[in-house]
Amino acid sequence: MDQLEMKKQAAQAALKYVQPDSIVGVGSGSTVNCFIDALGAISDQIKGAVAASKESERRLSALGIEVFNANDVSALDIYVDGADEINPQKMMIKGGGAALTREKIVSSLAKKFICIVDSSKQVDVLGSTFPLPVEVIPMARSYVARKLVGLGGAPEYREGVVTDNGNVILDVYNFKIMQPMEMEKTLNNIAGVVTNGIFALRSADIVIVGSAQGAQVLV
Amino acid sequence: MDQLEMKKQAAQAALKYVQPDSIVGVGSGSTVNCFIDALGAISDQIKGAVAASKESERRLSALGIEVFNANDVSALDIYVDGADEINPQKMMIKGGGAALTREKIVSSLAKKFICIVDSSKQVDVLGSTFPLPVEVIPMARSYVARKLVGLGGAPEYREGVVTDNGNVILDVYNFKIMQPMEMEKTLNNIAGVVTNGIFALRSADIVIVGSAQGAQVLV
Repeated sequence: MDQLEMKKQAAQAALKYVQPDSIVGVGSGSTVNCFIDALGAISDQIKGAVAASKESERRLSALGIEVFNANDVSALDIYVDGADEINPQKMMIKGGGAALTREKIVSSLAKKFICIVDSSKQVDVLGSTFPLPVEVIPMARSYVARKLVGLGGAPEYREGVVTDNGNVILDVYNFKIMQPMEMEKTLNNIAGVVTNGIFALRSADIVIVGSAQGAQVLV
Repeated sequence: MDQLEMKKQAAQAALKYVQPDSIVGVGSGSTVNCFIDALGAISDQIKGAVAASKESERRLSALGIEVFNANDVSALDIYVDGADEINPQKMMIKGGGAALTREKIVSSLAKKFICIVDSSKQVDVLGSTFPLPVEVIPMARSYVARKLVGLGGAPEYREGVVTDNGNVILDVYNFKIMQPMEMEKTLNNIAGVVTNGIFALRSADIVIVGSAQGAQVLV
């Protein structure tokens, strides 16, 4: 089974958590695109969605699913999103697609965070395989990079990328994250950091892993 | 002596901390405008400035002072800025002019933060007289407002204001800040918060207070 099939499998399995007539929180990325496609098949059964990226908004709209503004929704039952890495404590690294800030906002609105991944995303220690994305105010790029070096990382400016919020991304390489909650807070307190890609303060509640053995649900 | 004279007095007194041939960190606001005017008189003795707002950049340029990008400067000797409130521990509330994020970035580059205020800005407890500004990603406005209510504040959306970073401001009223460092961190960890106006992690080093009795320097 190839990786795309595993993603589709996880996405399909997430559908059973969607309540009739609800507004669904939707993340972004290739696995979420599979979920959006699956959601399209039951578009007449839901009220709509709140999306974490302009790209996801566009895909939802194209399938006839109404997109709501996060400011008009007081809470969501579920938020469905992928991850670049996920550890056994259901903490994640996200932001490979540069949508980390909006993903953190929309996931915070949700009672349950359902993370859909293929098995390649499971790691024991965050930062093992994937650099940590950090969204930064453009004028603070060099300052924040120096701070990240001070914390032991090797930041690289993601050239040519501007986030939906008009900011830039630093990808931190060689950065094994032993204490995700503490590191998430430390990074948030650096001047010029808008968001970092550690999702530990708001970890996932349910993980659905697509694998050659079928979709496994970890609760 | 009126308030403007007190501001001018404090601004003039800050000049003695400016080293020849240095790049000076410059904040924003009405008291800083007095400092920029004073700096104009010695513009031939400094190398230039890094500014915390587009408005300050414009004023510096108009006086023939070269404005550097923060990314091109590895450190500043001094950063001179005003405050909306300052307590005896030299912690501040800033952001009345909506420039808090860039002020926090440029002040972080500086070895010494010199805060210039008139005596009306001195308080025992931050939040006593001034609402706390919080810069927020637009789509998170309602979510962050609910969190601020949960922390005991009364947030108001600053209508019609967009920051230099494209974000919105919530002003938190009725919010006495008893533990500034803890509250600064708590607010930084709310999804959708870009910066908050508490300057406690990076407090001032020297405070110059303009008053009817002359400029007082608190070190």
